[in-house]
Amino acid sequence: MVLQPSAAGDPARHNLDPHLARYAARTEGMTASEIRALFAVASRPEVVSLAGGMPNLAALPLESLASQVQDIIAQDGLVALQYGSAHGVPKLREQICEVMALEGIKAHPDDVVVTVGSQMGLDMITRLFCDPGDTVIAEGPSYVGALGSFAAYQARVVHVAMDDDGLVPELLEEALTSAAAQGRPAKLLYTIPNFHNPAGVTLSVERRSRIVEICRKHNVLIVEDNPYGLLGFDGQTYPALRSLDPDNVVYLGSFSKTFASGLRVGWVLAPHGIREKLVLAAESATLCPPTLNQLIVSRYLDTHDWKGQIKKFRESYRERRDAILAALAQHMPQGCTWTEPEGGFYVWVTVPEGIDTKAMLPRAVTARVAYASGTGFYADGFGSRQMRLSYCYPTPERIKEGVRRLAAVLESEMELVQTFGTVQRRPVSGPQTPGPDTA
Amino acid sequence: MVLQPSAAGDPARHNLDPHLARYAARTEGMTASEIRALFAVASRPEVVSLAGGMPNLAALPLESLASQVQDIIAQDGLVALQYGSAHGVPKLREQICEVMALEGIKAHPDDVVVTVGSQMGLDMITRLFCDPGDTVIAEGPSYVGALGSFAAYQARVVHVAMDDDGLVPELLEEALTSAAAQGRPAKLLYTIPNFHNPAGVTLSVERRSRIVEICRKHNVLIVEDNPYGLLGFDGQTYPALRSLDPDNVVYLGSFSKTFASGLRVGWVLAPHGIREKLVLAAESATLCPPTLNQLIVSRYLDTHDWKGQIKKFRESYRERRDAILAALAQHMPQGCTWTEPEGGFYVWVTVPEGIDTKAMLPRAVTARVAYASGTGFYADGFGSRQMRLSYCYPTPERIKEGVRRLAAVLESEMELVQTFGTVQRRPVSGPQTPGPDTA
Repeated sequence: MVLQPSAAGDPARHNLDPHLARYAARTEGMTASEIRALFAVASRPEVVSLAGGMPNLAALPLESLASQVQDIIAQDGLVALQYGSAHGVPKLREQICEVMALEGIKAHPDDVVVTVGSQMGLDMITRLFCDPGDTVIAEGPSYVGALGSFAAYQARVVHVAMDDDGLVPELLEEALTSAAAQGRPAKLLYTIPNFHNPAGVTLSVERRSRIVEICRKHNVLIVEDNPYGLLGFDGQTYPALRSLDPDNVVYLGSFSKTFASGLRVGWVLAPHGIREKLVLAAESATLCPPTLNQLIVSRYLDTHDWKGQIKKFRESYRERRDAILAALAQHMPQGCTWTEPEGGFYVWVTVPEGIDTKAMLPRAVTARVAYASGTGFYADGFGSRQMRLSYCYPTPERIKEGVRRLAAVLESEMELVQTFGTVQRRPVSGPQTPGPDTA
Repeated sequence: MVLQPSAAGDPARHNLDPHLARYAARTEGMTASEIRALFAVASRPEVVSLAGGMPNLAALPLESLASQVQDIIAQDGLVALQYGSAHGVPKLREQICEVMALEGIKAHPDDVVVTVGSQMGLDMITRLFCDPGDTVIAEGPSYVGALGSFAAYQARVVHVAMDDDGLVPELLEEALTSAAAQGRPAKLLYTIPNFHNPAGVTLSVERRSRIVEICRKHNVLIVEDNPYGLLGFDGQTYPALRSLDPDNVVYLGSFSKTFASGLRVGWVLAPHGIREKLVLAAESATLCPPTLNQLIVSRYLDTHDWKGQIKKFRESYRERRDAILAALAQHMPQGCTWTEPEGGFYVWVTVPEGIDTKAMLPRAVTARVAYASGTGFYADGFGSRQMRLSYCYPTPERIKEGVRRLAAVLESEMELVQTFGTVQRRPVSGPQTPGPDTA
């Protein structure tokens, strides 16, 4: 009804999005994650997807859950369907403290804030701490959703390498010193100590106190992201960084991998002052997390053998981990290396020089197998020789078939490289972070 | 275990929050809303709370809902409890288009993004458009949750006054011209056209096309927030601004007031280019909205007489509106004025000069009645002579009793003013926005 002016006053004929000139500067960092773009393709049934990180929920007691939820709505519906506080349901916050106690954490329910998945916790913590240009230290590689939040707040990510024992303390200290020397001291260390996504490694117990000390010394707040901590295949757990230094660690937890991801119930445990600001930030983000979902988790923890259920999940994932490691050993061509996870969902694979996993992906999907190429897990362009394989969702048989297909694609790719050579891509910035490889 | 250094290297003995020096600049705008601080006090059973905006869910068919949800989990639990897309469940997005059609909106389901309540939509739109210092135009008064989001992104809010017909076009044009002349042209107009929170007025049909034209002319994107549009007491609806200019309006919708607030299911309808960025922003904020909650709303829309249910809600709110208007007319002292809402939840009251509603609030709570003082609804300190009364939740009898108590407090306050006089607070910045009063 009115003629459409462009933002600058010129006819916007060649501009597909007429709002382009209006966006905030932070939107420049918002790009579709490679993994997300992949999901559409990889979800075709004939493709074995080793790409996504969807938990396998088949072991859940659906009938019994269904009747519990029916009861919650019938008996307590006027609470379950009503607004709650941004802080979260008090009883659930108490139960969350019991869950965290399994990893040595002593916490007060007041310092727990329930969030819409731990992704929201991550987003809120970044909102509270990161001005544009602020430096965040993260493992290299790191969780793609964390990199997305850091980008949304225009933070600068500096990766620090891992080895089989997780984040390397000496390299962390080096990176912190170097960032400070550049006049851009780090604000946060973002770390996934247990069964790392995507690297599949775990921070050794010896290193934990060392990491905590280094961050204290350099005045860096630790953000400990721990969605997989209870999914160690032998039932082993590790002391949370939070248990070693309650005042300088913000801890992120989630029921997405130990119960049900579709409920979107996660939490943040934070020192008192931070927690107060967190509630305010959460209130302006979503008013409050869904009440019904919190009551469902609370009832589940109350009435189900949730530790027994986690054991079932662990066993199902261990079976799949065994399947993928056996298949990798059997099929992968010489020159490929990978991590050997003792929990969680992921194997991190490094392929021979000359092969670009992102460029290879379309050929893999044509061969009916999908993975997540490594560059998505770095903020600095690194990762082109890496890929993440998720063994959490497909059956062991499908996993083996997927690895067989992947190995065949890799072999023909390597033949091409040997015949014609390939210009290998190098990271344009950031440290030359090696993937955490084991032979 | 390690000594705690303060951020600046000094002993932090006098600093209650040792992280104080670490926060991002945007946290300075994050303060507890006056309304939130009030909730704790006002929730005592002996207090008649006219403060909160909780919908009255008593009319919901809980038994039938409970059994539907049981069925969803038992039959479709592996989907309901699993991650979904950040875009939202496709079938629900189609149904949302049918809901919006009631207000004249023609939309494609692709352009709908499901959010964790419309609060999240508001937060995401502000994230996409507002750099620090950017100007947002909002009605004066405006929704406190919107002011919270604007503050979190460091936007500058300029209020424009309303009268009985809602936002005044001439004043809007004046504010836009003035902002541009100051070199700070407005990015967004944030508006609640129907049954305004907190003002209780509705934008007249005549003004709607005028507002849309003015925003086009001044290159300002409209954010239309419409949680109450289907709650007109006579069943009347108004053409959405979105229906008048699909390319320049972002529309926010919610099931919180027409179905169940505790599910936190809202949505954004946005022009294509904005919608794409919105999905990316939502992904970094929460990964995806809860799947179960979306399936519950979808099943409800499919199987329940949801329009009949909205009619029941409307009737219950009309009864309460009638009760509060009758009580105000009967009890309020001379010199008080208020709006007469034709839908929604709120009456906006202006009290005589010399009375400060924020200062009076503790005395009101002592007299066992609570309200929301007006300053919370302004970004600029205005509103000290205003208060919001919510009639949505208490019974008509309780509402009448609450108004009776409030009137008594006001009367003794006015006596004090007459005897001793009072220094009236004036806004420190921003326009002298009058409340939208009717006698």
